[in-house]
Amino acid sequence: MSVAERLTALGLTLPAVPTPVANYVPARQYGNMLFASGQTPTVDGVLTMRGKLGAEISVEQGQEGARLSVLNCLAAVAAHLDGDLDRVEAVLKLTGYVASAPGFVDQPAVINGASVLLEDVLGEAGRHARAAIGLAELPGGAPVEVDLVLAVR
Amino acid sequence: MSVAERLTALGLTLPAVPTPVANYVPARQYGNMLFASGQTPTVDGVLTMRGKLGAEISVEQGQEGARLSVLNCLAAVAAHLDGDLDRVEAVLKLTGYVASAPGFVDQPAVINGASVLLEDVLGEAGRHARAAIGLAELPGGAPVEVDLVLAVR
Amino acid sequence: MSVAERLTALGLTLPAVPTPVANYVPARQYGNMLFASGQTPTVDGVLTMRGKLGAEISVEQGQEGARLSVLNCLAAVAAHLDGDLDRVEAVLKLTGYVASAPGFVDQPAVINGASVLLEDVLGEAGRHARAAIGLAELPGGAPVEVDLVLAVR
Repeated sequence: MSVAERLTALGLTLPAVPTPVANYVPARQYGNMLFASGQTPTVDGVLTMRGKLGAEISVEQGQEGARLSVLNCLAAVAAHLDGDLDRVEAVLKLTGYVASAPGFVDQPAVINGASVLLEDVLGEAGRHARAAIGLAELPGGAPVEVDLVLAVR
Repeated sequence: MSVAERLTALGLTLPAVPTPVANYVPARQYGNMLFASGQTPTVDGVLTMRGKLGAEISVEQGQEGARLSVLNCLAAVAAHLDGDLDRVEAVLKLTGYVASAPGFVDQPAVINGASVLLEDVLGEAGRHARAAIGLAELPGGAPVEVDLVLAVR
Repeated sequence: MSVAERLTALGLTLPAVPTPVANYVPARQYGNMLFASGQTPTVDGVLTMRGKLGAEISVEQGQEGARLSVLNCLAAVAAHLDGDLDRVEAVLKLTGYVASAPGFVDQPAVINGASVLLEDVLGEAGRHARAAIGLAELPGGAPVEVDLVLAVR
């Protein structure tokens, strides 16, 4: 199955590429290495949720936020690759940033939302190394942010 | 001296490879680049310490946690390299995450525990670029987390 | 224009290479990839500002801190490249760490100080992917820390 077919089977659509809120680019390639900028759970540039895990945001909501964040990363990657996500050879590293109220320590469960989606969409190529950490605050009050390092052809 | 001989001389044993607590892999390679997932001070998957620097955890305990974290990273790298850490050409980057109570600003001293161990075990190949930062929370209540980018042959 | 000419036109001077405060190196290269260690707003090794965004430090001060941090990164890169920043082919990734008091969510505005400087100094080569996040604490009480991944020739 192509990535496009997998997206369809999962009922997922790549969003419009998020416009950077500052002076940087959504994706930067050198040789086969591609770095995707940090993304938050935005739709059309607007956050769909605000708050912290362990306070306003449940683990389930955080997982949905992680999915939306990584989908925004994939949209940026697809735009960089002329729409062809089959050119992704491997996701090498996902860093998952979770805005965490004091005492919230289940960052892995939240970021798993992003990890599962990557493998669902990209198959074997979506398997990645990962770090999940708990932040004091994230841009705009986002509960989650995700960035990626990938290998592409 | 081989890395195995250095480990023995230091009285260190590589632990069992930590099982990811979610849907990702402990190490991911592309070409010569290897990304090792974030690790915390676990033994057999159980945290040996919980709390924050500047509160329950002293700098000395944090350094021990950093050593244990990076040893878990090396165990994951070794498992990926069929047990042969002499295939590590260079540690390129270590990111050290320190769970920090308000006012604790000596993240570098804590993460130095990991940096010193890397050079003790890997010699010249263990010299690395680094960032050390203070987090609100870390998975499971860990005081320290470490991840690595390496070059391998 | 060479990078040296751009620096002069901008009235900028590369500082002395900051000495690592622990057991690591300011820059580490493998093949064409170069990792620059996290830097804070220091001059001659001393922080020029301490505190958090949303508390003691204004966004404008934070932007100045981000500029100073990335200038320290560039100084480390230049020292590694025998002083020749024209050997930088591309900045691939900038991670911007912002010490954030509760409720401060404008990390992108702060880190934009670093992003703008990179493009001013390096031109097209300075365009980068980015993540900006809000930390509980940073080394020494720094309000900002920046690290870089670059491609060099």
